[in-house]
Amino acid sequence: MVRVAVDAMGGDYAPGAIIRGGLDAIKKFEVSLLFVGQSDRIQAELTHHKFNRSRIEVVHADEIIEMDESPAVAIRKKKNSSISVGINLLKEGRADAFFSAGNTGGVVCAATLFLGLLETIERPGIAIVMPNLKGVSLIIDGGANIDPKPLHLLQYGIMGSAYYEQILGKMNPSVGLLNVGEEESKGPDFVKETYQLLERSPVNFIGNIEGKDIFSGHCDVIVCDGYVGNVTLKVSESMAETLAFFLKQELLSSIWGRFGLLFAKKSFRNFKKKIDYSEYGGAPLLGVNGIVIIGHGRSSSKAVMNAIRFAKEEVERNINQNIMEQVKKALVDQSVNKA
Amino acid sequence: MVRVAVDAMGGDYAPGAIIRGGLDAIKKFEVSLLFVGQSDRIQAELTHHKFNRSRIEVVHADEIIEMDESPAVAIRKKKNSSISVGINLLKEGRADAFFSAGNTGGVVCAATLFLGLLETIERPGIAIVMPNLKGVSLIIDGGANIDPKPLHLLQYGIMGSAYYEQILGKMNPSVGLLNVGEEESKGPDFVKETYQLLERSPVNFIGNIEGKDIFSGHCDVIVCDGYVGNVTLKVSESMAETLAFFLKQELLSSIWGRFGLLFAKKSFRNFKKKIDYSEYGGAPLLGVNGIVIIGHGRSSSKAVMNAIRFAKEEVERNINQNIMEQVKKALVDQSVNKA
Repeated sequence: MVRVAVDAMGGDYAPGAIIRGGLDAIKKFEVSLLFVGQSDRIQAELTHHKFNRSRIEVVHADEIIEMDESPAVAIRKKKNSSISVGINLLKEGRADAFFSAGNTGGVVCAATLFLGLLETIERPGIAIVMPNLKGVSLIIDGGANIDPKPLHLLQYGIMGSAYYEQILGKMNPSVGLLNVGEEESKGPDFVKETYQLLERSPVNFIGNIEGKDIFSGHCDVIVCDGYVGNVTLKVSESMAETLAFFLKQELLSSIWGRFGLLFAKKSFRNFKKKIDYSEYGGAPLLGVNGIVIIGHGRSSSKAVMNAIRFAKEEVERNINQNIMEQVKKALVDQSVNKA
Repeated sequence: MVRVAVDAMGGDYAPGAIIRGGLDAIKKFEVSLLFVGQSDRIQAELTHHKFNRSRIEVVHADEIIEMDESPAVAIRKKKNSSISVGINLLKEGRADAFFSAGNTGGVVCAATLFLGLLETIERPGIAIVMPNLKGVSLIIDGGANIDPKPLHLLQYGIMGSAYYEQILGKMNPSVGLLNVGEEESKGPDFVKETYQLLERSPVNFIGNIEGKDIFSGHCDVIVCDGYVGNVTLKVSESMAETLAFFLKQELLSSIWGRFGLLFAKKSFRNFKKKIDYSEYGGAPLLGVNGIVIIGHGRSSSKAVMNAIRFAKEEVERNINQNIMEQVKKALVDQSVNKA
């Protein structure tokens, strides 16, 4: 059975929502969990629920890395944080995967430091699943690496492609490079250099894509630096909320609108579900030597449950082995091309 | 009366929508127009309308710069394009402002080349008005400068602030720097350096803002490089369309949803208007020595009309004089701070 270590202290609704989500997961999926954090608080929360005790273990960790702490400093100072202890469970082989909705930078830092990177990978990247008009796209990097070199971006393309194949189930997914225009000559220098690298790589590179193509479903894997990736994700999220707010306000402002809202309630609910990130639950941190999933700070119990489901799949499909093979293959191809 | 040169050939619906929008503008506002482009096509379009002939002039320009042409190459080769001819009307003093919904890079390039930059300004920036929960925000740069230096970004903050005061009517608007987190220590190096410059400048700098703050109305002027600015704008636009599509699909899929749609029709229309870029019409290119407004490639006649309205206001309020004064003041303040 896949064993997932879960940071019980990370996220805006921790430990409550995290533990509820975890308990929902053990009901639905063949997983056992290690809740990591302040054991008194975890135990107090667990007393409110009925669950299969053989599938749950509590691992004590004194400290909590707050959302606004500097990751590098916090990981160095707080040796006994739920993030560091959780990652080390992975390292020691006591868990197969780790999930945290806590300080993203902290998770990236601890994972890189304690687990190390996969062979030949230079930097980890956060891969985020987003709904689009035709299905889902995977954006990598969502914020792990804000000043990447072209080689890092190439590796993101390869890792994203491998992940999309293995976990999202589409062979030879298309890979696009996020830029300001379609032409090869456009964009900042590091993006132009990345274009050249991706073109020579074995991934199914379709060239530059623009911001407008993200939601059209124009391509499966979208490669970008962590700065623009992070901004894009946060813009999308807040835009969905803003639009929903405007629309509701508008509907409530008239009697006919109120009627409309009443009749269309179910449609609105389905719609909300379609654009709800918590259906996907978490974002894998690709490139580190272990399965690490990063949750949204506002992770609901449903998001936690779904993240654990993805963690289980990643372990079962041996995603990291696959990534390493793809990267090695790419390196061989590059050297053949160069020769 | 303010005289606006209008690129009749630029934009996906040119010349039809451009000319209709222009004719609507002369009915509503005290402006006269110079339509620039292939005169036979412009005249053919004009025969379909009744209008005050004393307020319209047609200026012939043989060539058209297509949307996908490389701006620098096209501006050099096509000396007689509607963009170059239009910009030169401004330079010769025959027009007070220029509007084009054509090749954005072409407009930026021609304006910089033929008009030159305002004193002390190093690079022009595209300022884009976006609706937010509390009103509107101004994002600068929307794509004129994809590899900016911190000094350029500082100047964008100052120019954006001056524009917001003069045209959007709020004194001492707040200025935020688009980044991946609120803390001063976050982000790519060029963003961190910009933080220092903005903090020492006389603008009302509120620090870093994140992608999620753009639509919340957290700040008035948002400073960013043209790469992330361009992606952000295109993501927002396509996301609004995608969400509207999902929602409509969902509503049409059930009988109750269809009822809801029927009742809520007016609300949906108002909602659409609220998020419709064409209400703002165009984006000023700030920093060049003349009033230049860039329209969306898909500009409707309404967008053109509104862009002409903004052009008129910019001329009447002498926005460039104001920008220069603010920039000079900032430079003095900086040197005082340094001393």
